Amino acid sequence: MKKAVCLISGGLDSAVTSFIAKDQGYEIYGLSFCYGQRHNKELEYAKKIGRILGVKDHVFFNLDIDVFKSSSLVDRSKNIQMDVDIKDIGKDIPVTYVPGRNTVFLSIGLAYAETVDAEAVFIGVTSTDYSGYPDCRPEFIKSFQKMANICNKKGVEGNPIKIVTPLLYLNKSEIIKKGISLEVPFEYTWSCYLGEDLACGRCDSCQLRLKGFKNANLKDPLNYR
Amino acid sequence: MKKAVCLISGGLDSAVTSFIAKDQGYEIYGLSFCYGQRHNKELEYAKKIGRILGVKDHVFFNLDIDVFKSSSLVDRSKNIQMDVDIKDIGKDIPVTYVPGRNTVFLSIGLAYAETVDAEAVFIGVTSTDYSGYPDCRPEFIKSFQKMANICNKKGVEGNPIKIVTPLLYLNKSEIIKKGISLEVPFEYTWSCYLGEDLACGRCDSCQLRLKGFKNANLKDPLNYR
Repeated sequence: MKKAVCLISGGLDSAVTSFIAKDQGYEIYGLSFCYGQRHNKELEYAKKIGRILGVKDHVFFNLDIDVFKSSSLVDRSKNIQMDVDIKDIGKDIPVTYVPGRNTVFLSIGLAYAETVDAEAVFIGVTSTDYSGYPDCRPEFIKSFQKMANICNKKGVEGNPIKIVTPLLYLNKSEIIKKGISLEVPFEYTWSCYLGEDLACGRCDSCQLRLKGFKNANLKDPLNYR
Repeated sequence: MKKAVCLISGGLDSAVTSFIAKDQGYEIYGLSFCYGQRHNKELEYAKKIGRILGVKDHVFFNLDIDVFKSSSLVDRSKNIQMDVDIKDIGKDIPVTYVPGRNTVFLSIGLAYAETVDAEAVFIGVTSTDYSGYPDCRPEFIKSFQKMANICNKKGVEGNPIKIVTPLLYLNKSEIIKKGISLEVPFEYTWSCYLGEDLACGRCDSCQLRLKGFKNANLKDPLNYR
């Protein structure tokens, strides 16, 4: 059975991505990261999604937060921006930007894929309803793939690990509709940056999620404050 | 004062590289990794080298060994190859190959560099007295740099972090001579893969080190069994 590593954050996009991988016939190896994110409750959701997917294995990887602490998502003394006009989300790199996050995640994903002999690493980046993060852009993924083709044993042997990004050109409502068709349990996905009991509905991540459900004419199963 | 992140493994090459960075006027941020390597005593040496360098800060980063366990350097139930004919070292990828190691290390180095606003990441890879590791080759470094140019905020802002590899085209005796000129304390560097009290003198890493000292007409200050 062909194998894939799926980066499962606990959010909506990575859940849909993982269900797409499963639908394509992959045996799934889940990989989730604790990097000091203030919404680390997303990891409980990642665990649930992994169980529902029936992952073969699921690594929860602790990263030393010291290297990421310039981000307001990690340094709790900094503010998360709220109530940004949704038209302006993605115009600049926001304060929630975590330095090099997807580069680190994908690098560790490659290592894990090589260790379990997986042929692909799935990641739920999207450049359409765009967060403003440089490491969600198609040119980043393309460049990372080129590097991945030569950085490791599988690459040298002519069998490089593929970075698969099925959501790259979908907008949020298309992602949600895709998830519905694959029976993704959205009640077990978490997006809010604040990580409190109820989602705030006001941070960039909540706003993009809510817009997606609205445009898809669906109700978000999460409760908002 | 300009800043650099230096990857300090505790080995000889990274020590010389870090002293070169200091000699070039950088304030040094040390970054060392525990990834389940059987010679994790190298980290004690990394700490000593960091202190002697006068690092501004030194992060010791624990990586989850599960993703690396296909390597004999991590999985202690596998054998390290010994007594390979020195002419044959580097011809194939050896069992001590750690999947994606330098990709992971450099990715985390980039994140750390961005967090402390450093302009460079120094890494002591060398392709001359070559280990056989794909991620020590010039083409890997070149490809990683291209990816680094666009993966993060500093890159997007037109000020990408440089990956600096001063040893890339030096052989081991040239590296050692360079280290002597910079007063690198080689007695605080560790190379042996076995990580026992005395260096074995027989693993690939010991053999390359001993050849380097011999060709430089110098005595290795380490004790061998």
